[in-house]
Amino acid sequence: MSPKTLEFWLGYGSTYSYLSVMRIERAVDGKGIRLAWKPFNLTLLMREKGLPTGPFVPRPEKMAYMWRDLERRAQLRGLPYRKPPQYPVDSQKTVRVGCLAALEGWCGPFSRRVFEMNFVEGRTIGAPGNLEAALSELGKDPQATIRRAHEPDVEQALDRDTRSALERGLFGSPHFVVGDELFWGDDRLEDAIEWCVSGRLSAGARS
Amino acid sequence: MSPKTLEFWLGYGSTYSYLSVMRIERAVDGKGIRLAWKPFNLTLLMREKGLPTGPFVPRPEKMAYMWRDLERRAQLRGLPYRKPPQYPVDSQKTVRVGCLAALEGWCGPFSRRVFEMNFVEGRTIGAPGNLEAALSELGKDPQATIRRAHEPDVEQALDRDTRSALERGLFGSPHFVVGDELFWGDDRLEDAIEWCVSGRLSAGARS
Repeated sequence: MSPKTLEFWLGYGSTYSYLSVMRIERAVDGKGIRLAWKPFNLTLLMREKGLPTGPFVPRPEKMAYMWRDLERRAQLRGLPYRKPPQYPVDSQKTVRVGCLAALEGWCGPFSRRVFEMNFVEGRTIGAPGNLEAALSELGKDPQATIRRAHEPDVEQALDRDTRSALERGLFGSPHFVVGDELFWGDDRLEDAIEWCVSGRLSAGARS
Repeated sequence: MSPKTLEFWLGYGSTYSYLSVMRIERAVDGKGIRLAWKPFNLTLLMREKGLPTGPFVPRPEKMAYMWRDLERRAQLRGLPYRKPPQYPVDSQKTVRVGCLAALEGWCGPFSRRVFEMNFVEGRTIGAPGNLEAALSELGKDPQATIRRAHEPDVEQALDRDTRSALERGLFGSPHFVVGDELFWGDDRLEDAIEWCVSGRLSAGARS
């Protein structure tokens, strides 16, 4: 039987995506799943449509909750965490490199390094030099790679994926998609994996 | 050692609260936890403040996702589920009775019956006769109970609890609270229980 595909739609400006980026490869390991990294540029499209972005309406109590929840969840997942110095971030250049990385098959290590810098080392996504540093560490030529990521075919791939995501009903990051079935948020990774493996959720399996 | 308190803040207009209402007693059973049912009227306060209510900004793709997610999650939890015929609902009378029920110690069975009618039997919260029917089934005099629930001391208790919730940073339903620690959403019930029992989340315990 050929492996089923779990699409992992991620945005580099998303906070909860940190958890998924760091744990998804281990979570799918050995389960006969083909993992497809799908960076997308939801922020841009939502801005174009005049829609609110981010996981929450920006109210102070919701933001405070988000940071505390993220900290606790990182602890629960055994992941290091330090509150990023800046939020929101400008992820426009990063998502283009992410798209190129997905096309070339190195999106996993790239995304992990970028999120780790932001959520562990206090090196903000979008701040000068950080993207270049991440690329260097991965053995890529930073300038050539960033230039390549802004060429028309990559721009078009990112645009096509982003519009496809919107048409399929995605509205945030992370989303996990199995066929037509959408799962939103790091909390749903286990559901998405179970769905990918068995096409359903078993009553009581994880309650 | 005296049992620690897990506060369960719920609104009767909330969809995901169905899952928590039906499973919380079983989830805390045998763990040395005192469960405090805390119905509150967040909708009213948010309207007063001109804030958006509901789990999502009302966009069609988010609503579609919510219903599908709720259906899947009910299945995962082994709970019956039928999509309610109406949403949103008017829960103003129900929350007053819920507050009275909490004061008198029968909020659990009352809330389960009300949510079960709405999410299994297609009997809308707030529609004529449903609240009365729920009360009758619980052996209460419907008219006398509803009248009692609208007397000043109950109104004041509901108002006091609701404003306290807002001051403590609650912004939706369900919320689970252990001391100063907030946990939002049915997804966080297990975290809240673990926090209540041990004051922390163990790395890898439920991943």
